[in-house]
This record gives sequence, C-alpha cells and structure tokens, in this order.
Amino acid sequence: MIIVLKAGVTTEQIDHVIQRVESLGLRAHLSRGTYRTIIGVIGDEQQVAAAPLEAIPGVAEVVPILPPYKLASRDAHPEPSVIDVGGVLFGGGHLALIAGPCAVESAERLDAIAAAVRQAGAGILRGGAFKPRTSPYAFQGLAEDGLRILRQVGDKHGMPVVTEVMDPRRVELVAEYTDMIQIGARNMQNFNLLTEVGRFQKPVLLKRGMSATVEDLLMSAEYILSQGNPNVVLCERGVKGFDPSTRNVFDVSAVPNCHGLSHLPIIVDPSHATGRPDLIPACALAGVAAGADGVHIEVHNCPEEALSDGPQALLPEQFAQVAEQIRALATLLGKTLSVPPGASR
Amino acid sequence: MIIVLKAGVTTEQIDHVIQRVESLGLRAHLSRGTYRTIIGVIGDEQQVAAAPLEAIPGVAEVVPILPPYKLASRDAHPEPSVIDVGGVLFGGGHLALIAGPCAVESAERLDAIAAAVRQAGAGILRGGAFKPRTSPYAFQGLAEDGLRILRQVGDKHGMPVVTEVMDPRRVELVAEYTDMIQIGARNMQNFNLLTEVGRFQKPVLLKRGMSATVEDLLMSAEYILSQGNPNVVLCERGVKGFDPSTRNVFDVSAVPNCHGLSHLPIIVDPSHATGRPDLIPACALAGVAAGADGVHIEVHNCPEEALSDGPQALLPEQFAQVAEQIRALATLLGKTLSVPPGASR
Amino acid sequence: MIIVLKAGVTTEQIDHVIQRVESLGLRAHLSRGTYRTIIGVIGDEQQVAAAPLEAIPGVAEVVPILPPYKLASRDAHPEPSVIDVGGVLFGGGHLALIAGPCAVESAERLDAIAAAVRQAGAGILRGGAFKPRTSPYAFQGLAEDGLRILRQVGDKHGMPVVTEVMDPRRVELVAEYTDMIQIGARNMQNFNLLTEVGRFQKPVLLKRGMSATVEDLLMSAEYILSQGNPNVVLCERGVKGFDPSTRNVFDVSAVPNCHGLSHLPIIVDPSHATGRPDLIPACALAGVAAGADGVHIEVHNCPEEALSDGPQALLPEQFAQVAEQIRALATLLGKTLSVPPGASR
Amino acid sequence: MIIVLKAGVTTEQIDHVIQRVESLGLRAHLSRGTYRTIIGVIGDEQQVAAAPLEAIPGVAEVVPILPPYKLASRDAHPEPSVIDVGGVLFGGGHLALIAGPCAVESAERLDAIAAAVRQAGAGILRGGAFKPRTSPYAFQGLAEDGLRILRQVGDKHGMPVVTEVMDPRRVELVAEYTDMIQIGARNMQNFNLLTEVGRFQKPVLLKRGMSATVEDLLMSAEYILSQGNPNVVLCERGVKGFDPSTRNVFDVSAVPNCHGLSHLPIIVDPSHATGRPDLIPACALAGVAAGADGVHIEVHNCPEEALSDGPQALLPEQFAQVAEQIRALATLLGKTLSVPPGASR
Repeated sequence: MIIVLKAGVTTEQIDHVIQRVESLGLRAHLSRGTYRTIIGVIGDEQQVAAAPLEAIPGVAEVVPILPPYKLASRDAHPEPSVIDVGGVLFGGGHLALIAGPCAVESAERLDAIAAAVRQAGAGILRGGAFKPRTSPYAFQGLAEDGLRILRQVGDKHGMPVVTEVMDPRRVELVAEYTDMIQIGARNMQNFNLLTEVGRFQKPVLLKRGMSATVEDLLMSAEYILSQGNPNVVLCERGVKGFDPSTRNVFDVSAVPNCHGLSHLPIIVDPSHATGRPDLIPACALAGVAAGADGVHIEVHNCPEEALSDGPQALLPEQFAQVAEQIRALATLLGKTLSVPPGASR
Repeated sequence: MIIVLKAGVTTEQIDHVIQRVESLGLRAHLSRGTYRTIIGVIGDEQQVAAAPLEAIPGVAEVVPILPPYKLASRDAHPEPSVIDVGGVLFGGGHLALIAGPCAVESAERLDAIAAAVRQAGAGILRGGAFKPRTSPYAFQGLAEDGLRILRQVGDKHGMPVVTEVMDPRRVELVAEYTDMIQIGARNMQNFNLLTEVGRFQKPVLLKRGMSATVEDLLMSAEYILSQGNPNVVLCERGVKGFDPSTRNVFDVSAVPNCHGLSHLPIIVDPSHATGRPDLIPACALAGVAAGADGVHIEVHNCPEEALSDGPQALLPEQFAQVAEQIRALATLLGKTLSVPPGASR
Repeated sequence: MIIVLKAGVTTEQIDHVIQRVESLGLRAHLSRGTYRTIIGVIGDEQQVAAAPLEAIPGVAEVVPILPPYKLASRDAHPEPSVIDVGGVLFGGGHLALIAGPCAVESAERLDAIAAAVRQAGAGILRGGAFKPRTSPYAFQGLAEDGLRILRQVGDKHGMPVVTEVMDPRRVELVAEYTDMIQIGARNMQNFNLLTEVGRFQKPVLLKRGMSATVEDLLMSAEYILSQGNPNVVLCERGVKGFDPSTRNVFDVSAVPNCHGLSHLPIIVDPSHATGRPDLIPACALAGVAAGADGVHIEVHNCPEEALSDGPQALLPEQFAQVAEQIRALATLLGKTLSVPPGASR
Repeated sequence: MIIVLKAGVTTEQIDHVIQRVESLGLRAHLSRGTYRTIIGVIGDEQQVAAAPLEAIPGVAEVVPILPPYKLASRDAHPEPSVIDVGGVLFGGGHLALIAGPCAVESAERLDAIAAAVRQAGAGILRGGAFKPRTSPYAFQGLAEDGLRILRQVGDKHGMPVVTEVMDPRRVELVAEYTDMIQIGARNMQNFNLLTEVGRFQKPVLLKRGMSATVEDLLMSAEYILSQGNPNVVLCERGVKGFDPSTRNVFDVSAVPNCHGLSHLPIIVDPSHATGRPDLIPACALAGVAAGADGVHIEVHNCPEEALSDGPQALLPEQFAQVAEQIRALATLLGKTLSVPPGASR
C-alpha cells in the first residue's frame, strides 16, 4: 500500500500518518520526491484495508497494491478449479452448457424443453422457481412447486438442475431440490444471501451484477468461499451500457480477465447479456473462444407464451445448432464438452 | 401499446398477432404504412405488460405507452405526498436533513455526533447497524446492539432515526427500533426485501441502485406501495459512471425527473454519490436547488477512526456550514427545513 | 413513425399535429386508445426525420420505425459488401489481419515489425503518422515523414498500408501515401472529416467512438457513403465503461449487431478495446468467433521504447501465435484469411 | 510517480527499471515490502509521463502522482481566472448566461429571440452556423451567412456572440465574426482544432465530451492554453449514461471538481445535458448552486419549426423565468450576473 501525501503536508501530519500506520502493526517507509512525499506501507496490506487512511489530514490518496480478495485469487490457488455439478464439470478444460426456460411454467412444458436441450448436448437444466421481476404485477414463479417440477424433470432426463435463490430464508429449501444454486445479478451484492449459500457445499452459479467490476465479482465470490464453500462458478451476463439496441453490454473480456486473477471457472450468459436471440449464437461462440468454461442459454419451445423473458429465448432447434458449433469450437481449443454421466454424447 | 411489425410480415402472422391481442382482452387497431405495418393496442396496457408479444413471429418491436407503475405515478396521485417520519416531514414544501455516521460504532461516538448534527439543523439521525460491505473481512456492523444504541441516542436528542435493513428476516426487528427503514442501493431490486418492508407502515428510504434507471426506481417503490405501505421517500445517491475521479455520478436530474413522474418525495445523498468530502457541499446545494425534498449526509467526528466509509464523511463543523447554506436556499425557494417537534430551530 | 400524444391533449392540438404532418407531405392515421391517442405517420419517414415533431404542444413522444441510415443498411444492399484494400479482402467470408506499431517511429523499427507480422499472416500494415494524443506534450507523430516511411516499408514487404487521418486538410496527402484511411474513435463524429474522406474512393477504416451507439456508427458510415465512397470497413474498438481494470469495454456483440443491420464488413480491435496485452489474444478470438471480418492488433518489437501506447502492444512472437489461432478458427468457420496477392501464405 | 513491480520480479529486472528511470534524468528510490517492491520516481514526473514504463518486464503498474496538465491546474494559477467576452465576465464571482437558438435559421427569427433573451438577462447570444448533425441528411447550418446574421443581430442588441467551429480550416473565419468560439462535445478531442483555436486570443467555450473524464477535459484545455490562448471557459453538458429517459447524465459534480483542480471558469449546459425542457430549469439552478460560473440554455420562439434540436429548447418566457431564479440564487451566493456593458440590467 502506498500513501501519497498532499502538497504542503506538514511534518506533524507526516508523523501522525506514520504513527497511525505503525499502530496498525505495519512499517512505514518515507520517500520525499521533488513535488510530493509518499509513504510505502510494509506488511500485511489486508490488515489495514478497512482502515480509513484517506481520512487522515494531509493524505491525498491511498494506492492499494494487493487485490482485496484472497481465497478467490490465483495466487492462493494457481491451478484452475474444476467444479463438479452432479458429474458435469466446469473449468480446467471442461466446458458445460446450461439450458432451459427462464421460468418453470409446467411439468409438461419443462419436460419437452429438457428432452430437446439434453439431446442437443446441454449438461445442466435450468428453470426459475422464484423470479426477480422488475414489476410486482408480473409472474413471480411457481415457488416450491416449481422446484419440485424442476427436480423431477431433471431426474427423468438424467440432468443436474440449477435454479435461482433470492431470499436467505429459502436457501436450504432450494439446496434440497437442486444441484447448483444460482445467485442472480441483482443479488450479487446481497451479502446475507452470499453468506447463506456459503454455508452449504452445493455449487453456486454467481452472476456478475450489472454495475459490478470484475473485482466486485471476485469479492462476492470471496464471501462464499470464506464461509467454507469452495464450489463457485462465475458468470458474465452483461453490464449496463448506453446503447439501447442491446439489453446490456456483453463484456467478453471478463472471461480472460477473471482467468488471470482467479482460479474459479467462469461461464457466459449471452441470453441476458444481449436480450436478443439474433445475437445469442455469435456471443455464445465469442465467449467460448475467449476461454469460457461454459455457456448459459435460455431455451423455450413457445417463446410467445413464455411467462417470463420469452422474447430473449432461443427455440430448441436454434439451441441445437449453436450447441453443435460450440462443440466444434471446444474441440478446436482442446476442451471437452461435459455432459452428465451416462449420457450418450 | 404499439406493436411494430417486421418488413415482409405475412397476413397469417398479422392475423395471429391480432388474435393474440384479442385473446388478452384488448382490441387491436391495424395501420398499414408505406414501409411498415403497426398495430395499436387499445385497452388496459398493464394487463398485457408481461405478455411476451415481442416473441411472436413477425413482430419487430413493442412500444409501451403507459408507465409500468401505477401507485407511484403522479397520474394516480396528482398532489405531492408528504411523508411524516416522527414529526419530520419530506415533500410538499418540507425539506429535511438526515445526518449521522456511516455505522453505529459506540454509544459515546454516536452521542457526540448526534448532538452536533441536531444542533446544526438535522431532522433525522442515521447510523448503520447492518453494513453491506464489499469485503467479507470488513466491519459488518454491531447488529442489534447497534439498533439499540441508535434508538437510545435518537431518543436522548429528540431525533427520529433511520437505519438500513439488508435481510428480510430482520425487517421486523429493525422496524421495532427505528422510525424509518432504509433500503440501500445494492438492495433496490431485492424484491423479497421490498415486499417485506411493504407489509409495515413504517416510512421507507429507498435508495436508487447504481445501475437503476428512474423507471426501475419507481418500479421498486411500486413493490412497497402495492403491499400497502404508502410511506416511501426516494433517494438519488449516484449511478455508475466511467470517471474514476468520483465514486459515482450524482444524477441531479433525477430529482425533477421523479417529481414529474411521481408524487413521492425524493432526497439526495451527495456523500455516496461523490465519495468526496470536498464535493459534498456543492452537490448538496445542487440537489436542493433542483427541488430535492431533503439531503442525506454522512458525518463523523473523527473520520480517520471510522470503521466504515470514513474518507467520505464530513466533520460536524463542515456539516453545520452546509446545513446553514441549505436553510438559506430553502428559504429562497419558499420551502421549510423540517426539524423534530420540540426542536428550538 | 408513431406520434404518441399526451394524456389530456385537446382536439385543437390533435388537429394541429395532423396538419403539421400533412404539410410535410405525409398522411396521418389517428388511433384513440383507452388512455392515450396515437397518430401513425404514413409515407417516407426519412422526409420528416429532422422535423421537431416532439416540440409540438400535446406530443409526448415520437417513435421512429425505420433506421435513419439508408445506404449503410442491409435493406439497401442485402448481400455483404466485400472491401478490397490492395488485394486484401474484408467481408463475405474473407477475413484479414491489420498489424503494426501504434506510431511510425523510424524506418528500421517499422521494417523489423513489418517483416515479422507479414511472416505471421498479417494482410495490412498499420502505423500512425499523425497521433491523437490526450496530452499536448506527448509525441504527436512524424507527419509526412511517417507517411513516407510507412509507404516504403509496406511496398518492400508487399503489404497495403493504413494510417489515421485527423485533419480534413490532410486527407488528400494521406490518401496519396496509403491504401486505406483510418478515422479514429475520437473523430467518428468529426463530420467534416467524414465528408472529406467520402470524396475519395480510398477504403476507409471507421472506428466506433467510445460513446457511440451502433446506430451512431452506422450514421457516420452513412456520411461517407452518401458522398460517393462505398468502401467502408467498420471497427469495434471498445466503448466507455465503469470498470477501470480494462481501458474500455470490448462490445463484441456489435459484430453480429452490425451484420444484422448493415452490409458493411466489421473488424475488431482488441488492442484499444482492452489496453491489456494479456487480454488481447482471447478477445481477438472472441471477435472472430462472433463473425468479425478482420482483426486489428498493435505490435511492437520493443514496447518499453515505444513512443506511443507501448504497454498495450503485443510482441511479434505473441502476434504470430494469435494469428495462427485466428487462422485455425477462420478455417473452422469456413472463412479465408486474406493475405496480399503474391504472399506465400 | 510510483512504479509497482510484479510479484517474483528478478534483480535483473529491477536493475533494468532503475536504469531506465535514471536514463530519463530522474532518480529512483527502491522500497521492498513484504509482498511487493515499489520504486518511487523522484524528479519532474511530467518528463516521463509519455515513457511507456508499464511495458518494461517486471512492472505491474505505474501510478502517477501529479496531474498531467500544468497550465490548466490550480497549482499553476491559484486564483480563479476571470474570462472577459466582450465585457461579459465568467469566473471569480461573475456569472453569465449564454442563450439563443440551436442554429441560426434567419435574421428575423434570431432577432426576435435575441431581443427576448437580452431582455431576460442573457449576456451572450449563441446560434450555430455550422452544425454537427448525426445524419448527413439533416440541416447542416447556414455557414458564413449564419455567421453574418449572428454578428449583425448581436451588434443590434449589444450582445457578444458565440458559435461553434468544427473544422480547423474555418477557425479564422469564425474568429472574425464572433466574440467567443465554441468547441462542441464531439470535438473536445479533435486535437488539430484545439491547436488551431489556441493560436488566437479569442475566448473559447470548451464543452466536455460525452465520454470524457474531468481530467480529459482539462487536458483538452491544456492543448489550447499551451498554444498561448489563456481564455478558456469549460462547459459541463452531460455524459453518456444508461438511462434513456434523459439524453445524457448531467454531471453537476464536475463543477466543484473542476474548481478544485483548475483556475478556469466552468459553466453548465442543461439543454444538452438533459434534452428535456421540463428538466432544464431545475438543472440550471442546480448548476449555479454547485458554483457554476454561467449557464448555457437553448431558446427558440417556435420550437416546432426549429431546424435543429427544437424539442429541447425553452420558450423565451420559460427562459425569462429561469433567468430570474438564477439571478436570485446568484445574489444569495454573493455572485453577480454579468451583462454586456451598457445594458440596463
């Protein structure tokens, strides 16, 4: 950590800063420049990360050097983590597809969609039972009935399942029914929820918030890891941007960026990132080419009747086509498309 | 609602769209242009807001005309709402100051700060007991002990108090101890939490999310209102931007923008919007000049020892100065600075 | 075009709007809904695009239906355009690599870099002679000397060359020396410059501005096309974002987005989009996987001595590696990597 | 300047960095921490600002300490600059209003508008003769005829005039006709244009680019100042944001932010910042309350017939009202509304 002092800082102020640094158990190393004086802080930076050194009179700026996360960092774990979700693998050369409707609407509909995506190569079935809707008047999900249907349909097709949890009171319930718990973008900094899912060993799909930096995303992963749950898969799903022609901006650079900083796998969700079926296949391939460890795509067999996010769903045949292209690209990159154990392909 | 059809749409597709609109209980009004055909949807637009009409083959775009919120809209309630928090008023010509430290740290420290801000003209005392911290290793707040201290200090100085709630399981607890419940920016779309605070009559301070549009903010207010709690005060506290020189971008235009669309009062929080004490006074005055119904400012008597957000706090004497300027500006605008009943000024 | 009227609009106001529409040579089609009245405008929308209909009393909103560009649109030219730059092709299944240093620094250095990138498969040599520098104190380029060196080195290695022009007074000069003229991001809406390059037939590399929507980019292309120059290659090079960990946000979705709206080829520039050599290869591949018609990468053989943007340059051996990966990916996608006529590979 | 080295940096690499720093005429001060080693660079930082130290192997990050602008900084000129535009003053307690139509359309129309805004308290008349239009098919301005009309109407009403220049070839022409030259947001980083206007002593109104940081804005001012023209007035006119309900985000914090960093006056332009007449008055007052040295507002007497940006213009009577409020606010703040010499008020 480096403390940059203001022009005109007094000797008393400098002494006070040094004293404060030393009172926190670190050493201070003064360096007087032509225009400015700086203090190098030597010792465990994370010990002082929370100390408001910038508030000390005479301090212009505090420049951290180490990242504020530990368990999520690649320094702590140089090899890529491989996360196992009911036999389907993410990371370390394994790539998996998560597919299914935005919301679980009925057993029949989910069954038809599951059969199609399973056949096309999807590893994990998704479907929302609790839906975060901008409007209080919109369909909010089937709740526990939805969880039950998801579990049954997943079992029938031999697919692990993932669904979103929004409420810390329902983490245990959701964990009982599913193989992977999703934290949605709007809850990426719902710290109570992160803490709660950290208490289980169930894999977590952690989506990047719409205004979260890559560092923010890794800090949220750190919340989960620090509770004892190492099974986190990150997900890039678009950040806020100024161009109304897409729902969000698909930040594909987050994939190599996270891979450089962290050992955790990261997948991409072009459905939410773009909100446009015509852009989803190209962005899915872009994500895989950038090194993503998986792709999350919403699929519906009758988008115009979908109870949530219909306009952004791919049809099963569109999904089959992009899945085929992803498989070919994965092969070129020397990666394996992971499917559930016992699956024919 | 207007449905714009794609170039080359077929008659069958048009018929299908019309049929779908009518099946939802509305009327369709076809209008063929030179290049494009459009369908005007006549009836209660909110009935079909959730129907994924964009997913119907042949549909290019769906243009809503009415806002998706009802109870929060000015159409529903043409007069500005006046929200009463323990005798301190927001809205309709009343302006109030909320001040206090980021976190409740100890009874002694809070007492000293409360005495100072009360004296300077603050109407409501703030202090966090549950803190949403980016890092799991940072100070998380004193929890119920913090609530107890906040209540005691508020009572001693005759000030209503406000604190943040992050977890739906603690809404009842927080409501017991405080006069106003704050929903923080990171939880603006934590819909379970919104629903929960909507079940009480306790006033809610709803902060705008960092990537929330003004419409998103009003939709979140609608969640609370639709549960039966009409006491919502909105708060502009900065949105994400690209300039690292400020923590966020203080979107002062949200003040007149919300006033045009909604009857709810809106205050500004220049502390979180800028993250820089040197910019807070100017931005506080800007907010009031733009019509804000209050100002929220973090104050600490020893920022360098603050356990949270110290570097952005004003000192009590800085707060007193800006409070004085706000009072003068309010007078110029024909507004009243609201203080607790029994207060000398 | 659809004109949405305000609630409470009077009959006189409606008549006035209709009259105004008709005075512009179009027909108006009134449609009264339950809550709002709308007017469909029938005829050539582009005729009225510039008329400030939103300023007419009683008008709430004007919703355009057709895109505001004509010549750049896919409607006008359904097949993808193939742009030929000295025998190197962009678009319609042809993919080309543009490589070279940020700035032309000396004949020797450029010669060494050109030999390396040519060998690795680059089709076109780049190098700046006029540099847009944020600081007036930074190296501004070698001007005409730089153009001369670029031409000589390009000729020696049998490579067409591209360089940026910033000043309308120098378009003719730049056109004399080069095979392709670059309009940089900061000048994407320098309309005088666009008009000037539109007067030549020389291919133009038009970079997307940092705060330009895809529609803005296509409107700037329209400026060039409307002057009679059809040879425009678009370039996605990152838009402004809030995460300081990358220089810009690489909006890879712009590639399929532009392909859907326009016949013009679009390439990607991961060097400027990310500003980080460690992210460039992954983003280059992402762009190609998304359908890009080329890739632009800055290469320098001694980045620490570069006079401009050294920290973001790839070394020649890093470029050779990513070029090889791009070639393999292009083959998988059924595309051809275009190299100059006479090149061995 | 501080150079942070990578973990695992070798002694040879450290020596190479130090050698490089010393070869640039500066001294290096090594400081080994527990986890990282840093090098403090002592001497004139601006000498090495352009050296790509980040590209040296072993370097993780380079942290500048001094701002990259000199002439624009408050360090260089502690007192606020007062800029005189034909007797109308900006800065140092003087506040002026710039008003007029987006474009000069005809002598009659401009005359009527000028009379009205002059009467209401405007100090300077604006009107575009060269218009930067997104569409090549939109009205581009009356060119020199527009300049002539602007000059004549300004003279008739005793008002200095300002107009935009977009092309370096026309700076001299524009300077002949006007009292102040405007650089528009789209040209804030058109460095040739900045250099050109820097060669005259004519005051420059420099608008902030839509994706420019405050530092970028000050660097563009530095271009002008470094050519010898000290007469620069900055202008905040909104930055790109994600909420489509306003044209841009009005970043009012830029006013105190610039005042802290620079001696140059800064005004606000709520017309372009919001694009909405209903928000302009509140934002104008917000800007003045935040300390702005002036306000720029577009005014038109028949917005529905305006040839450019009609929907965002205020009517003369709306302008008169906000001008009156600004005057009252300026008085409260102890500032003077500056009007042309000889004006009655």
